[in-house]
Amino acid sequence: MREKETNNNAGAISSPTPMLQVHDRDQAAGDTNNGGMRTTETLLRLIPIAPCIAALVVMLHNSQTNDFGSVSYSHLGAFRYLVHVNGICAGYSLLSAVIAAMPRPPKMSQAWTFFFLDQVMTYLVLAAGAASTEVLYLAFKGNPAITWSSACSSFPTFCHKATASVAVTFVVVASYALLSLISSYKLFTNYQPPTLNPAISKPSIQVATFHA
Amino acid sequence: MREKETNNNAGAISSPTPMLQVHDRDQAAGDTNNGGMRTTETLLRLIPIAPCIAALVVMLHNSQTNDFGSVSYSHLGAFRYLVHVNGICAGYSLLSAVIAAMPRPPKMSQAWTFFFLDQVMTYLVLAAGAASTEVLYLAFKGNPAITWSSACSSFPTFCHKATASVAVTFVVVASYALLSLISSYKLFTNYQPPTLNPAISKPSIQVATFHA
Repeated sequence: MREKETNNNAGAISSPTPMLQVHDRDQAAGDTNNGGMRTTETLLRLIPIAPCIAALVVMLHNSQTNDFGSVSYSHLGAFRYLVHVNGICAGYSLLSAVIAAMPRPPKMSQAWTFFFLDQVMTYLVLAAGAASTEVLYLAFKGNPAITWSSACSSFPTFCHKATASVAVTFVVVASYALLSLISSYKLFTNYQPPTLNPAISKPSIQVATFHA
Repeated sequence: MREKETNNNAGAISSPTPMLQVHDRDQAAGDTNNGGMRTTETLLRLIPIAPCIAALVVMLHNSQTNDFGSVSYSHLGAFRYLVHVNGICAGYSLLSAVIAAMPRPPKMSQAWTFFFLDQVMTYLVLAAGAASTEVLYLAFKGNPAITWSSACSSFPTFCHKATASVAVTFVVVASYALLSLISSYKLFTNYQPPTLNPAISKPSIQVATFHA
């Protein structure tokens, strides 16, 4: 992949002074534009924090004791994983929002890090949601073939709280799918399209040297 | 998001004839480049077909009958979902490889469709893998708190075949994570970076009109 060249030397031969003025005005407009983009990204990165913490807290306090016995989220691997992933997600969302809010020129290393971590976070949260959904499905329905009883008939409150937590986790999945899209966009727009001809995409000032 | 302008009118004022020759030569190079890119993408899209079919076939023939009873993949929702998703995955991989192989100019609608469907496919296969892993975990370990017995002690062959199918499904997940990255790259390189100044990025021939 080839990084793009910024052809801000455009028109430098014919009229240096007017071009400089244009550049200055555009620079100011670009800064405002960058500020708006930064604020939007920071807000989008803050959005998943609330559902992450909500899903985490609901699951963390999910336990039920009755005549059938006692059950807690910690008895089920998928629910423990869901709690951990939501904790990591809340921390990462806050950290990435702080980094995205910093007023500094965009760096390729940061774009790659955000792209990679957003993808990983999406996959982790989705896996937690899918595994927990499967446990809930088995807990509600049971499985006669392998003699697993329907646990939710014995522990209805536990199952309802777990369902709420899993549903909120899927809100986090949706938020992260969107954030992954945005970080892909921010990363790959810095590269040349694979089908674009490198010689054609060079600024005209360099191509003009061909004519002698 | 702004689509990029191809500044292939570069140098048109100073020397039209040499530029045309350069353009022709570059066009041929570009076509070869596009052909190579197309072949690579087609091959990458063909790769997941084998693991999809392998995971599907292994799971589809997974059943065991012994003194404890009879168990089949169809008794478990997660395994049925895994079979369906692997079938869809194999079909989509083949179809997308055929479309990617067609020698025609790249279209934005196709780039958006591939991007969207690759993401959806990754999420579907990952969810199937995660849910099935959770079932296997429960089947191997059991869960005393909710009185679920370890089914794998009664049906070891069933569990081993299911484990093999799930492991192969994660190969499909990895392939699709890579394909998602490639389709993101192919789509978003056609857009301007969010921080790039629109006036600066215009070809010099247009900026030159500013000077009068």
